[in-house]
Amino acid sequence: MTDLEIARSVDHKHIFEVAQALGIHSEDLIPFGWYKAKISLNFAERVKNRPCGRYILVTAINPTPLGEGKTTTSVGLSMALCRLGHRAAVTLRQPSLGPVFGVKGGGTGGGHAQVWPMEDINLHFTGDAHAVSASHNLLSAFVDNHLFHGNALKLDPQRIRWPRTLGVSDRALRDIVLSVEGKPRQGQFVITEASEIMAVLALAADHADLRQRLGRILVGLTESGAMTMAEAFGCAGSMAVLLKDALLPNLVQTLEGTPAFVHAGPFGNIAHGNCSVVSDRLALRCAEYVITEAGFGSDLGAEKFFNIKCRMSGLRPDAGVVVATLRALKLHGGGGTVKPGSPLPTGLTGPNQEALERGFANLEQHIANVRAHGVPVVVAVNAFKDDSPAELNWVCERAVAAGASAAAVSTHYADGGKGAEELARAVVKVAAQESQFTHLYDATWPIKKKIETIATTVYGSAGVSYSPQAEKDIELAARLGFEQLPICMAKTPLSLSHDPALKGRPSGFTVPIQELRILSGAGFLTAVCSGIQLMPGLPKKPAGERIDMDPRSGEIVGLA
Amino acid sequence: MTDLEIARSVDHKHIFEVAQALGIHSEDLIPFGWYKAKISLNFAERVKNRPCGRYILVTAINPTPLGEGKTTTSVGLSMALCRLGHRAAVTLRQPSLGPVFGVKGGGTGGGHAQVWPMEDINLHFTGDAHAVSASHNLLSAFVDNHLFHGNALKLDPQRIRWPRTLGVSDRALRDIVLSVEGKPRQGQFVITEASEIMAVLALAADHADLRQRLGRILVGLTESGAMTMAEAFGCAGSMAVLLKDALLPNLVQTLEGTPAFVHAGPFGNIAHGNCSVVSDRLALRCAEYVITEAGFGSDLGAEKFFNIKCRMSGLRPDAGVVVATLRALKLHGGGGTVKPGSPLPTGLTGPNQEALERGFANLEQHIANVRAHGVPVVVAVNAFKDDSPAELNWVCERAVAAGASAAAVSTHYADGGKGAEELARAVVKVAAQESQFTHLYDATWPIKKKIETIATTVYGSAGVSYSPQAEKDIELAARLGFEQLPICMAKTPLSLSHDPALKGRPSGFTVPIQELRILSGAGFLTAVCSGIQLMPGLPKKPAGERIDMDPRSGEIVGLA
Repeated sequence: MTDLEIARSVDHKHIFEVAQALGIHSEDLIPFGWYKAKISLNFAERVKNRPCGRYILVTAINPTPLGEGKTTTSVGLSMALCRLGHRAAVTLRQPSLGPVFGVKGGGTGGGHAQVWPMEDINLHFTGDAHAVSASHNLLSAFVDNHLFHGNALKLDPQRIRWPRTLGVSDRALRDIVLSVEGKPRQGQFVITEASEIMAVLALAADHADLRQRLGRILVGLTESGAMTMAEAFGCAGSMAVLLKDALLPNLVQTLEGTPAFVHAGPFGNIAHGNCSVVSDRLALRCAEYVITEAGFGSDLGAEKFFNIKCRMSGLRPDAGVVVATLRALKLHGGGGTVKPGSPLPTGLTGPNQEALERGFANLEQHIANVRAHGVPVVVAVNAFKDDSPAELNWVCERAVAAGASAAAVSTHYADGGKGAEELARAVVKVAAQESQFTHLYDATWPIKKKIETIATTVYGSAGVSYSPQAEKDIELAARLGFEQLPICMAKTPLSLSHDPALKGRPSGFTVPIQELRILSGAGFLTAVCSGIQLMPGLPKKPAGERIDMDPRSGEIVGLA
Repeated sequence: MTDLEIARSVDHKHIFEVAQALGIHSEDLIPFGWYKAKISLNFAERVKNRPCGRYILVTAINPTPLGEGKTTTSVGLSMALCRLGHRAAVTLRQPSLGPVFGVKGGGTGGGHAQVWPMEDINLHFTGDAHAVSASHNLLSAFVDNHLFHGNALKLDPQRIRWPRTLGVSDRALRDIVLSVEGKPRQGQFVITEASEIMAVLALAADHADLRQRLGRILVGLTESGAMTMAEAFGCAGSMAVLLKDALLPNLVQTLEGTPAFVHAGPFGNIAHGNCSVVSDRLALRCAEYVITEAGFGSDLGAEKFFNIKCRMSGLRPDAGVVVATLRALKLHGGGGTVKPGSPLPTGLTGPNQEALERGFANLEQHIANVRAHGVPVVVAVNAFKDDSPAELNWVCERAVAAGASAAAVSTHYADGGKGAEELARAVVKVAAQESQFTHLYDATWPIKKKIETIATTVYGSAGVSYSPQAEKDIELAARLGFEQLPICMAKTPLSLSHDPALKGRPSGFTVPIQELRILSGAGFLTAVCSGIQLMPGLPKKPAGERIDMDPRSGEIVGLA
């Protein structure tokens, strides 16, 4: 059965019933059909002084291009906790239309570990990503309109760094030439999930904070080098109005009816990679266990979870789950390569203890990365149907030897929550201890020291190099008073390093920083590694080619 | 009281109750909150053989830049019909984010003649416009991706005429240079409401028709001059999937609880200017009277209603309401000019019989335009508080003398449905007769003959001229087999002619056609007059500057 067929074969609860399980009543919900709802921020305000549940981060080793089941593990773990009698919820990012029609396809889990309604969540959902784009592009239009009507602010058109955005993978929009009345200037589109507005939405505490963050977005510099913020263009209020409803958390359910918050979608590689602060805060007041997923490996989403998201939210994680698969470990050990669309080589799918042992070093680094933040680790080995039990057990044993507090094999993809019960028991046990959560760096450190700390500690690099542009950007950020912002690294997810070809646990490499972007509304500095694009392209055979609508029923086919 | 304050002061019905009044039950609804819902197309299918209600088109004279109350009249008339004991509904287009934050502000009526919830309808509503943009830009991305991956179709990059789209007024995107791997090509953004996808959404009969129309969109020409349609890029199915829910009609209510369908938003000047066929068809099976509004004057939205929308839907209008105001008639008679943001001159607001008489000629042409389609006319004089009763009566008397079947003064803005009762009685009487509806031209005529028939009959022009580009375009459309499509004129709304400065009922002018666009998915040819832009710009003081969010309550302020 396809994911869609499995999802459709299950009886789903009415969304009011899902909310009821968290103590949220219908008057605090805005339904979107019968299986989706937004939750009013008044409710969040009313429960804000309740004690918090246990906060569990799900991260992973460096994945193959197919993904290693981090979403399915998050969903499966939340379902297993419910089966064991705990009140649990999962918080996830919303999938992006770029990957849905591009390389990856949908992002709502798979097999028997999915969130529902998968078609809606993978497409427009409750419209939040569209609201982000609209808010972002309103500022872009107001900026160029300001230039057109006389440029009273004396903005330097060549030093405007505010891009435009679209929720589609369209490489032709990476670098464009805009034109107003025959005057050209360089322009740029980034994908919506890399927009600063998406980060603002994901990090804002409430409407007031949202409004303030929008106003303090840095648009560019004047001819004399002074900062010009979004507030000066008179549209920050309208931008906030466009995001008013988008800030409300979205509630859906897993295939076993567990409450699932799916909200905001910053990418893990080119953005900060975590779902919204409002969702996590709300969920933690309603559930005993909140499972939250961060994008890609611990080098990306988890590092930014600890050092950006938790720094801003003040929330403290109690445990980290690191997801690994035999195939990805073998890939890191040289067992073969993965080409989306082609069958996997037997060096990855069949027994291959040698590659497994070599590749295990990748998992070791990820265990260390989570522990470097004072957070205890549970390794979840996401098992495929033909995986060797001996190899699975070997990984679990070695993981504990490498510093994990526990490790478990999980078969949630095939078996739903039941398949993740052992993992859930391990998580309950580990999260019961007091976590010693700490940030990796002090935000007040100089910019380069922060970048170098991430690169050496988390990536295992020998050092960092900076392009002339990056040097200028760093100097500018310091001059403008943004030195004390945390760092959001933009880096490939396919390696611990900046180079997707370096598998396992590479060392001796130098991380090249190409540019530094000031995201003063989001409240961080994005350090972009060389070769990283903020607007993806489509592959030769995009996933969108397989998707269609049954013209008679209007039903979707081919979405996975 | 502001429009927003009036709207908030009223008790609104639950949307299920509004639907119930039309015989639509909750299982056929997809609620979006408590005051908006989409209606399933299964319901539309079940009622399609019921007899149709009376179909009333609302159009207007050439408006001032402030608008002459066509939306308020449509809403007021529907409310008045309900007050008189008829089952009535109104069908409107969704406002566009461009004007909401630009020149015009919101588009949900005003005073006591509004549709509700005005904030939602003016912003993201149920996400349909965003779905249109996403579907449109997916094709754009697939086209450039095809060029990038080897261009197997041998598309000529210089003859791709498929633009990109955004739901914002951003003149910097009118003409851009795209770039893929260093190879530049000219690109263009049009506003979402001028996107061919918006027209497809508004004209599609059902999901099957939607899917087919998307596949037959003309993207460009190959190096050898052959057509390449959207279907060839493999994404027409995904485009349809993105529009699956957008095709479902949206139900809301007037301030008096009358059912209102607000669906699709093609502009009246640069697109075909009418709400969706699916909404009108459904409404006509559920209501005795369906009031539908077409954009701008009878030279634009109404002409395209008769000759594009009704041609495709097969629906026959029973009466046309032509809205006029004293101020606009006086403007057409030289009584003064209107500058948005400045107070109106007394030549427009005070008694000015001389200007009124001169300007009446504009109304005469609009009466004639509707009658030229065999449809009887009711003139609605939309009265402002200080309008002279003598002048109002004079217009009504002259309107009947000029060929209107009836005329009535309407005060719905101040008085709600009660203020439009006289108008409603007139409409009931006139629409009771058998209409002799006919198209202005035969679609099989040559392209120039169709354009010239519209220009001379509806605009009163002496003739039409064609730029070299337009000549080439017309020749191409004929060569490719699109000669038999109806014409969608893109023209200023501020004059019967192509020139906004020509007021009243000008004559002797020649309409200059700059280009002809082939919209084969929508099923028409757009003839663009010189100087018309498919992407608007923002004014010096955009409406968005006045809009903000109360940070404490999250409530919107300044939206009107």
